[in-house]
Amino acid sequence: MAAKRILLLIFDGLGDRPVKELGNKTPLQATNTPNLDWFAANGSCGLLDPIGPGICPGSDTSHLALFGYDPFAVYTGRGPFEAAGTGIDVRPGDVAFRCNFATVDSEGRVVDRRAGRIKDAGALARPLDGLTVEGVQVFFRAGTEHRAALVFRGEGLSPQVSDTDPHAEGGQVLRSRPLAAGADRTAGVLNRFTELAREILSKQPLNQEHAVKGLPVANAVLARGAGVFPAIPTMKEKWGLHCAGIAGVGLIRGMCRSVGMDVLDVSGATGGLDTDMVAKAAAAANALREYDFVCVNVKAPDVCGHDGLALEKVRVVERIDEMMGHLRAALAPDTVVAVTADHSTPVALRDHSGDPVPLAIFGEGLRVDAVTEYDEISVASGSLGRLRGLDLLPVLLNLADRAGKFGA
Amino acid sequence: MAAKRILLLIFDGLGDRPVKELGNKTPLQATNTPNLDWFAANGSCGLLDPIGPGICPGSDTSHLALFGYDPFAVYTGRGPFEAAGTGIDVRPGDVAFRCNFATVDSEGRVVDRRAGRIKDAGALARPLDGLTVEGVQVFFRAGTEHRAALVFRGEGLSPQVSDTDPHAEGGQVLRSRPLAAGADRTAGVLNRFTELAREILSKQPLNQEHAVKGLPVANAVLARGAGVFPAIPTMKEKWGLHCAGIAGVGLIRGMCRSVGMDVLDVSGATGGLDTDMVAKAAAAANALREYDFVCVNVKAPDVCGHDGLALEKVRVVERIDEMMGHLRAALAPDTVVAVTADHSTPVALRDHSGDPVPLAIFGEGLRVDAVTEYDEISVASGSLGRLRGLDLLPVLLNLADRAGKFGA
Repeated sequence: MAAKRILLLIFDGLGDRPVKELGNKTPLQATNTPNLDWFAANGSCGLLDPIGPGICPGSDTSHLALFGYDPFAVYTGRGPFEAAGTGIDVRPGDVAFRCNFATVDSEGRVVDRRAGRIKDAGALARPLDGLTVEGVQVFFRAGTEHRAALVFRGEGLSPQVSDTDPHAEGGQVLRSRPLAAGADRTAGVLNRFTELAREILSKQPLNQEHAVKGLPVANAVLARGAGVFPAIPTMKEKWGLHCAGIAGVGLIRGMCRSVGMDVLDVSGATGGLDTDMVAKAAAAANALREYDFVCVNVKAPDVCGHDGLALEKVRVVERIDEMMGHLRAALAPDTVVAVTADHSTPVALRDHSGDPVPLAIFGEGLRVDAVTEYDEISVASGSLGRLRGLDLLPVLLNLADRAGKFGA
Repeated sequence: MAAKRILLLIFDGLGDRPVKELGNKTPLQATNTPNLDWFAANGSCGLLDPIGPGICPGSDTSHLALFGYDPFAVYTGRGPFEAAGTGIDVRPGDVAFRCNFATVDSEGRVVDRRAGRIKDAGALARPLDGLTVEGVQVFFRAGTEHRAALVFRGEGLSPQVSDTDPHAEGGQVLRSRPLAAGADRTAGVLNRFTELAREILSKQPLNQEHAVKGLPVANAVLARGAGVFPAIPTMKEKWGLHCAGIAGVGLIRGMCRSVGMDVLDVSGATGGLDTDMVAKAAAAANALREYDFVCVNVKAPDVCGHDGLALEKVRVVERIDEMMGHLRAALAPDTVVAVTADHSTPVALRDHSGDPVPLAIFGEGLRVDAVTEYDEISVASGSLGRLRGLDLLPVLLNLADRAGKFGA
């Protein structure tokens, strides 16, 4: 039998707890979701602990687990994955930092850690990208608003260096210090880069324009959270899958790129509430003609959870259901679809939680259990039981008739 | 959002199998339990394997797992925990023994391994507590009836020594022998202590009184089951929880003390069938004002299981339900309550079994599943699925909004 293709739909922060405003139902329970329910009713369901029972996942550690990588073994912090998300081709051994563009006064004091939440900082980032500092290759890319990523590549680098970001306004831009033996060089390179950045940024036309208009100038780079990019095999090497990722948010794009996925650009996919979910669905259905495995991340439910917006989360669930309706019609019959989340983001909590997330798996010819609704409670009685994130990829490989036999 | 408090109720040996005498129902199924059912109906339910599926737990290993400590990594035998339960402030590296007061004849033969199940042996234990033997500090405390605990503290001690207890009447008090290199000193100290104990005990007024009355004299100490106290972090260090334990039985009090819990004394809490469960509930509700985490152990169902008393176990379940009614009324709304057991003790088996135990978790704003009755079968269809003991504490931390995020 020919191997099937796999579509992994990760609705970021979709899981929730009962919400008073919704009559003590979760947003999934409170919303009419005929298409999500169709996948549940025609597939098998269960609960998923993305990392483990009770463990509250970040989106980064959770995506690693859902891609079949043990985050306890390979996760080295957010910085390297954020850097990958900006489009830097990060490699094992590279040292990455999360950065802010900031406004610094003539005495080196940080006046605004976010440079007025500057937009379109791409032009400011470009002259800093591709520098060589003390023999170290420098990559620098703008992220959303004031955020940016910095990567050093070279011999003898270490992530054991202190931040240059004072983490508060009014403080001086800090000198980076080595935090362990062998980190002197990296701290030195970071300090030299920080000086160069101030010189280069102050000359940029956009900043001169801002100065004239009395707007904050982005005349400094603050670096924090050094991390080394882990040596992880690609999805192709590890699972034999030719993979594509569709995500609007930089961090998730970075997670996908870090495991060797092609990250596809979809017009209208923003990573925000305004994202075009149907466009993502269409892009996924299209990509499945070429790829073995396509992962789609939709950030919107997480945004509503963080903002504590129950009714907005209901509306996002309605749009997710519409997206699932599109997929129902568009998917080829040889597709195995998993519908899940990377973590719960309960609106009452306004943050991630370790509550398990719903999981439905649908594919032609696969087992169908008695569950008929897709929500945190209904799926719990399904035939998948309670799984761990790290088990998901082997489960999907098996259902796609791609599992090798262990033994004879 | 403020962190909630956690109440962990461990009904020792509560799980069971169908009992003929009860119409092939388990004691939980056969008993009317409106309050236990209320917690199930308003919370989420599942089955718990305290150690792992099919593994038959001791109360000691199980309590370790339920407190979030891997018993395969930290359990070194029952002795050290029993010693902690008698009130000895056991420390990592101490070597502990379980002891009996025994009756020995003039030729050193054991006539009664339990010295007539002597009561009130505290006065006999006191002169043996605080001795220094060959440079080793000795702690000795009476437990229930003829039981006692012996702890050695000093340099170069080893638990690899043989028992002095012949484990049968008619045998001689044995000389302890080293069972591994480096254990000579410990065996020597134990032998010297055993001689000293005979000298000191024979002079005690209580024994002279018993001799006059023709009652068995407690004129010897038999030691067995040497174990070294493990170096384990406290619950505060490991989980950030300020903890109290409420338990009548020495071993469980020792388990609680060993993980750094304050062990609270509750008038009327005996660890037997006559224990005052409502007093324990009241003490727990009160302690939750001060502590982040309170654990209550109720031994009575285990006692019925060991004695094979089905109808008695039903009556104990009725009293547990009354206790739960008290808690329903007494608990502050910011409390997360877990209702479970440390193992099953089926009355038909008269011993522990590896059958999973019921688990219900209740808290305001937490998920509610369709389960409406608290028993071994009903809970199995609940939304918690089937969890392992070691997962319980992370699950409770998450539901109490105390879980740190792993990743970003």
